[in-house]
Amino acid sequence: MAKKRIRLKRPSKAKKKIGLAPGTVTYMGDKEDVSLHLEVIDYNKDRYSLENYSDVTQTYDIGTEDSVTWTNLTGINNVEDIKKLGLHYNIHPLILEDIVDPHQRPKIDEFEEYVFVVAKMLYYKNEELVVEHISIIMGENYVLTFQESEHDVFDGLRKRLEAGKGRIRTEKSDYLLFCILDSIIDNYFLIIESLSEKIEDMEDQLFRDPEETSSQQIQDLKREALRIRKSIFPLREVLNRLEKVDANFIYPQTNNYFKDLYDNIVQVIETIELYREMIWGLIDMYMSTISNKMNNVMKVLTIIATIFIPLTFIAGIYGMNFDNMPELHYKYGYHVVWGVMLLIFILMIYYFKRKKWL
Amino acid sequence: MAKKRIRLKRPSKAKKKIGLAPGTVTYMGDKEDVSLHLEVIDYNKDRYSLENYSDVTQTYDIGTEDSVTWTNLTGINNVEDIKKLGLHYNIHPLILEDIVDPHQRPKIDEFEEYVFVVAKMLYYKNEELVVEHISIIMGENYVLTFQESEHDVFDGLRKRLEAGKGRIRTEKSDYLLFCILDSIIDNYFLIIESLSEKIEDMEDQLFRDPEETSSQQIQDLKREALRIRKSIFPLREVLNRLEKVDANFIYPQTNNYFKDLYDNIVQVIETIELYREMIWGLIDMYMSTISNKMNNVMKVLTIIATIFIPLTFIAGIYGMNFDNMPELHYKYGYHVVWGVMLLIFILMIYYFKRKKWL
Amino acid sequence: MAKKRIRLKRPSKAKKKIGLAPGTVTYMGDKEDVSLHLEVIDYNKDRYSLENYSDVTQTYDIGTEDSVTWTNLTGINNVEDIKKLGLHYNIHPLILEDIVDPHQRPKIDEFEEYVFVVAKMLYYKNEELVVEHISIIMGENYVLTFQESEHDVFDGLRKRLEAGKGRIRTEKSDYLLFCILDSIIDNYFLIIESLSEKIEDMEDQLFRDPEETSSQQIQDLKREALRIRKSIFPLREVLNRLEKVDANFIYPQTNNYFKDLYDNIVQVIETIELYREMIWGLIDMYMSTISNKMNNVMKVLTIIATIFIPLTFIAGIYGMNFDNMPELHYKYGYHVVWGVMLLIFILMIYYFKRKKWL
Amino acid sequence: MAKKRIRLKRPSKAKKKIGLAPGTVTYMGDKEDVSLHLEVIDYNKDRYSLENYSDVTQTYDIGTEDSVTWTNLTGINNVEDIKKLGLHYNIHPLILEDIVDPHQRPKIDEFEEYVFVVAKMLYYKNEELVVEHISIIMGENYVLTFQESEHDVFDGLRKRLEAGKGRIRTEKSDYLLFCILDSIIDNYFLIIESLSEKIEDMEDQLFRDPEETSSQQIQDLKREALRIRKSIFPLREVLNRLEKVDANFIYPQTNNYFKDLYDNIVQVIETIELYREMIWGLIDMYMSTISNKMNNVMKVLTIIATIFIPLTFIAGIYGMNFDNMPELHYKYGYHVVWGVMLLIFILMIYYFKRKKWL
Amino acid sequence: MAKKRIRLKRPSKAKKKIGLAPGTVTYMGDKEDVSLHLEVIDYNKDRYSLENYSDVTQTYDIGTEDSVTWTNLTGINNVEDIKKLGLHYNIHPLILEDIVDPHQRPKIDEFEEYVFVVAKMLYYKNEELVVEHISIIMGENYVLTFQESEHDVFDGLRKRLEAGKGRIRTEKSDYLLFCILDSIIDNYFLIIESLSEKIEDMEDQLFRDPEETSSQQIQDLKREALRIRKSIFPLREVLNRLEKVDANFIYPQTNNYFKDLYDNIVQVIETIELYREMIWGLIDMYMSTISNKMNNVMKVLTIIATIFIPLTFIAGIYGMNFDNMPELHYKYGYHVVWGVMLLIFILMIYYFKRKKWL
Repeated sequence: MAKKRIRLKRPSKAKKKIGLAPGTVTYMGDKEDVSLHLEVIDYNKDRYSLENYSDVTQTYDIGTEDSVTWTNLTGINNVEDIKKLGLHYNIHPLILEDIVDPHQRPKIDEFEEYVFVVAKMLYYKNEELVVEHISIIMGENYVLTFQESEHDVFDGLRKRLEAGKGRIRTEKSDYLLFCILDSIIDNYFLIIESLSEKIEDMEDQLFRDPEETSSQQIQDLKREALRIRKSIFPLREVLNRLEKVDANFIYPQTNNYFKDLYDNIVQVIETIELYREMIWGLIDMYMSTISNKMNNVMKVLTIIATIFIPLTFIAGIYGMNFDNMPELHYKYGYHVVWGVMLLIFILMIYYFKRKKWL
Repeated sequence: MAKKRIRLKRPSKAKKKIGLAPGTVTYMGDKEDVSLHLEVIDYNKDRYSLENYSDVTQTYDIGTEDSVTWTNLTGINNVEDIKKLGLHYNIHPLILEDIVDPHQRPKIDEFEEYVFVVAKMLYYKNEELVVEHISIIMGENYVLTFQESEHDVFDGLRKRLEAGKGRIRTEKSDYLLFCILDSIIDNYFLIIESLSEKIEDMEDQLFRDPEETSSQQIQDLKREALRIRKSIFPLREVLNRLEKVDANFIYPQTNNYFKDLYDNIVQVIETIELYREMIWGLIDMYMSTISNKMNNVMKVLTIIATIFIPLTFIAGIYGMNFDNMPELHYKYGYHVVWGVMLLIFILMIYYFKRKKWL
Repeated sequence: MAKKRIRLKRPSKAKKKIGLAPGTVTYMGDKEDVSLHLEVIDYNKDRYSLENYSDVTQTYDIGTEDSVTWTNLTGINNVEDIKKLGLHYNIHPLILEDIVDPHQRPKIDEFEEYVFVVAKMLYYKNEELVVEHISIIMGENYVLTFQESEHDVFDGLRKRLEAGKGRIRTEKSDYLLFCILDSIIDNYFLIIESLSEKIEDMEDQLFRDPEETSSQQIQDLKREALRIRKSIFPLREVLNRLEKVDANFIYPQTNNYFKDLYDNIVQVIETIELYREMIWGLIDMYMSTISNKMNNVMKVLTIIATIFIPLTFIAGIYGMNFDNMPELHYKYGYHVVWGVMLLIFILMIYYFKRKKWL
Repeated sequence: MAKKRIRLKRPSKAKKKIGLAPGTVTYMGDKEDVSLHLEVIDYNKDRYSLENYSDVTQTYDIGTEDSVTWTNLTGINNVEDIKKLGLHYNIHPLILEDIVDPHQRPKIDEFEEYVFVVAKMLYYKNEELVVEHISIIMGENYVLTFQESEHDVFDGLRKRLEAGKGRIRTEKSDYLLFCILDSIIDNYFLIIESLSEKIEDMEDQLFRDPEETSSQQIQDLKREALRIRKSIFPLREVLNRLEKVDANFIYPQTNNYFKDLYDNIVQVIETIELYREMIWGLIDMYMSTISNKMNNVMKVLTIIATIFIPLTFIAGIYGMNFDNMPELHYKYGYHVVWGVMLLIFILMIYYFKRKKWL
Repeated sequence: MAKKRIRLKRPSKAKKKIGLAPGTVTYMGDKEDVSLHLEVIDYNKDRYSLENYSDVTQTYDIGTEDSVTWTNLTGINNVEDIKKLGLHYNIHPLILEDIVDPHQRPKIDEFEEYVFVVAKMLYYKNEELVVEHISIIMGENYVLTFQESEHDVFDGLRKRLEAGKGRIRTEKSDYLLFCILDSIIDNYFLIIESLSEKIEDMEDQLFRDPEETSSQQIQDLKREALRIRKSIFPLREVLNRLEKVDANFIYPQTNNYFKDLYDNIVQVIETIELYREMIWGLIDMYMSTISNKMNNVMKVLTIIATIFIPLTFIAGIYGMNFDNMPELHYKYGYHVVWGVMLLIFILMIYYFKRKKWL
């Protein structure tokens, strides 16, 4: 039984934040030493460029009026750089606060010049579920994304952008926002597939080898399901509101795509709810497995005890030392006693067979 | 105890889809080698024809202005053919994506020229529940249906169309949509009837022969109920919105029929919820059955042990080898001991009778 | 323990209906051979007549403009006659389908000329709960009711109509609809009163004589509560919408009465929910009763075993045959051993007393 | 363990009412012989009078235009008198029906000339919870209250009226309605305080002396909570609607007071919900207490049995009568056996200590 | 196991309040002897002053038109002083009643001249959760806060005001209201962090040393979670309505900040719900831990008993005193019996090994 436990992500925000002014941009997570990395993809129908920087000021003048610029910033612990970027793009301090707070739940905020979306990227790293905070700002012809560490789920999207296949290079920044969210949500399907496999494995194990299964393993599974649910659930509301955002940089034809995202997230959430019920079922199965095991232990004890206790009593009788015990002096007394004992033994076995204990 | 287990339908969509552009039409299911089959029924008040094709292009020019054309495509793994058909009927790429994705949950999408409905056909095949994906596109005077395999639930509908009885041949494509959905939902009643039979059988078994029942069988039943519920539940919302679709190819008189569908689906869902509660009741019954069995095992042990342990003690007493044990030399000492033992035996039996353990 | 079990009302609709055209009027219940009976009550302020017929055509010309005609049809298995009646009163085929389908859940449909209400009459027959389907059509000055068998809950209403006391004879058909629904709902109070008695009896039995109670009896009770709930629950929505029907044959003063019905049905539903929680409480009590019983069995075993096992051991010691066992030759060795055993016995009893096991 | 049980208040309404015309004013409760008592308080800023009557007609002409008249009728079993009063104040028959039906749930009905409110007074009488039906009719300058028995919760209100302190004498009948409801709701706090005390007592008892606690006591507590909840819950909706009543005899400044009532009732309901969850917690605690007790019983048995069974076996070995058993003839054979037994004893004790069973 | 128990905060309001006129300002809490303390902070962009008073009248003339005055009153048991202050600021008597009632749940009331907010400050004092009542009145350029005792959560806010960093000194009273609520809610994160630690500690303890854990400790944890939830939950509605308050002293730019508060409180509530589910999981784990322990106890008993009972029986056989027992006289009879016993012993051990009981 692995001793390694999934620990709760503690809202350690609290201790850091107490006493700070609201709108104070302080990193609230635990990845303190990720170095700043900016990846800037600028593209339109005709051209595509990808550059890497480590200084925010270098990224300011890349985009042009007729292109879409996607700036992907890694390392939200670099608060000062994010503040600079925020100043350049005219972003509200409260938004900056949310960008650098990995405990912020998924949400959407609309402003006149941009839309702000918070989501969670989920992936497994060394068999452990990682919930990574990602913030997206989408304006007229730019998209900014802010992530905690180098790992992300956008590799497929990058390839499609480079290859220029499909609609992606002919569309505007709103379609890029859709593609980013789509990549995130597609990954959720991987996560719940992995969850479904774990549930089945646990079930098979419970069926095959109940001794090896512990209540705690099931609880850990339940907790993982709860964490996933907590990360994904608020996104439904976010996507619902995203459909209704009224901004001149969101084009009507993109709405069908947003609707599709909403359908997908609803499907993910329903599947998770289904899995939660199945995990409850596992707990029931585990409890009845324990009870069944105890039942079997009891049966063994009862069979042995009820067979031999009366026999031992008979032996005890003829071990008494009374002067006057005529049976002791019968020639075949000993053999008769053996016969009686055998009879009792057979009757007992028959009784247990009929009771289906054997 | 059958070892065969119902496995979860895994959302294997995930692994296939990661990295694909949205709107990419890729088959997401596991029936990779169903060959394409198109069945085209063209009818109006006066005429009726049914033709089978294996090439989509052959089906293009069948319908006329005054007839309704129902094209039923089998084998949604034939993605290229579906794309061709989609182009011909001017269908949105996202819709094509949904058509070939068996994991898509029931939904409705309205477009100017057609309505798109996703539903699930449920049936049993070799005693196993099959959830089959079906997509329906209904336009001015045509209906397209897309299904995974040859098996479907429309045989009664085909007969009615051929016979031309009732209103069916005099009505338009909206009435055909209703008939298709009605066939699907009528079949749900068969499914829940089968579920109800299984619940009763399980209950009878639990009552008659608790030894043979395992916690897992009940969990499998619960899981089946959950899968059915998941497939049917979203259809309520779909039918609710179908009533409210405002399109010139849906005639007011058909709305009463759609309302009737809605009533039916609500009834199906309520019945499933009832069955779920009854399955929970089965789990409770199972747990108390285990406890009762253990109780009975314990009683047998206790009766035997409490009767014979004191008797064996008495025998042990007179098996001691002290020099000075006057009882041993009494003439009827042995018989008196037997008498005492019998008395204890009778008192014990009486005690257990009064306690209702015997 | 009674072996008689409440079986689920299976939705056998399914098997009969598959393949039938929608709007096909086929009887879906299991009372196939109830003969047709029509009871027609025609009344106004001044006159009252009650006639019985067995042919629907005879009932057509009974009512006059200034009277209310209540036609109560018994035997909805007589489908052809109901179709004739439907034609006469101009009733939609889908409504006729609902009238002859006892599995139809309570609902309300508004048409220009009439209002259609489906409800369930509940009563006990031979100690078994009967859920009888009743359909009501209320038009300008007529009310049609359709029931499965002769038994109904309208005797009080008939007497009031005949006696002509109260407002009933001076009011119109909408007030008669109210009276019919009021009779049905008043009967629900009898049903839940009976349910409440059963719960209390079960509880008393569980308290007085837990041996006689089985988990299954409680589950049967729960199932009965679930069936009642399922039959009554949709009526809340029906009555809520009835209040809001906008038809020229429903007079404003009747609305207060409909509101009163709504209050009553809410009260019934709340009471049923309360009873459901109490049945859950019974299940908890039953489980803890089993556990307590096992606890007591274990205590008896433990007391006997822990008292006599050490004593038997001592007896065993002095039953050994070693040459050199000086105690055996002491004059009072035997008596000392008895003394020690008595001491152990008393200490054990004292220990169990202190532990409150005795 | 007290055998006295809380019985369900049965909806005995049913049996009395079946067959009665709606609006028939019949007493539905079980306090059949309370004699009629009318207490009339007439007051304005300047004067105050309290008179007692036993005939309703005497109370008709007490109030004046510039005063508020509160008529408190005790004994709603006196149906004829209530009908007379109803006629005098022009009250709808359905309202009179509700007044004399103690099973009527809390509700509000608005009429042009008056507002009708049903509530429940809760108090303890001989340690038993009494749920008393109270109806209030509030018109332009009168308030009528109808209660079942002499006991009520308005003594504080009467004193304030007599003393004339605060706003009460300067305000109109709407403020009196508020004061009456306020007195009723204030009393609910006493009830839930008592409930909270009972929960704590039960918990302490469970902690201190689990033997004395029975599953049934907890179920009775749960039932009491359910009854209180059922009586209070509908009042939330009533008070919510009271705020919105649009009548010329309810003055705007009173609305703040009604809002305050609503806040209070929400607080009461939330507290009850909290207590319900705590009672569920008690059930869990009780179940685990039983299990723990059984665990301890088992431990005692196991310790005694596992220590002495092997020892008894050893004694049995040397009690055998084989001719050739050399150990029996060793000089210190007996002492060595004692030594071995002691060793086994000590090892066992050590084993149980390490397992923390001792 | 600590005997110290968390007692319910009883709604002792009840006993004090019965019979009092509504709007009577009486202290309802249990901190009767906190002495009055007023801390007045007056500030604008340019200046800042903090003064302490113990007489309310001294605080009346501190604020000016161009400054914001925050009067923080400690000791709401000093009812008379609060009444004086209420008169000065023209505060409704019902509001004063709420200010001095620590049992009042969080709420918001809007008036023309001010907004009234009730919240709860949560903190730990001597390891015990304290729920402190705080009321806030915010008018054009003043904020009044009323708290029960000296301890509060505003130290960070005071420092920021003094330092004058950030926007705080340039904004109006609405921003101060936001800062106060923000300080309270930030503290909730500390509380739920502490709760999360306790859950993990409990879980580790359950895993490491189940003997030391009691059902009651888990119930206490659950109760703490329930109390926190009850204190925080209503604040969601309060903050939702605060966003929508339409008053000329709340400026549009502050709305973004209120929205942020709402997001935070939703996050806190969702986390608490998650923790509640985890505590339920603990209860499940605890129950299965008990069952497992009993299972292990049973196994030890069964192993010992089933091994030695048959062996003891064999010894008993050859302890019988029959004259004719040939085995007794065989030369190696004794050694053969030993051999047989050893064989049985080994077979038993093998059997238990295969059953995985050893």
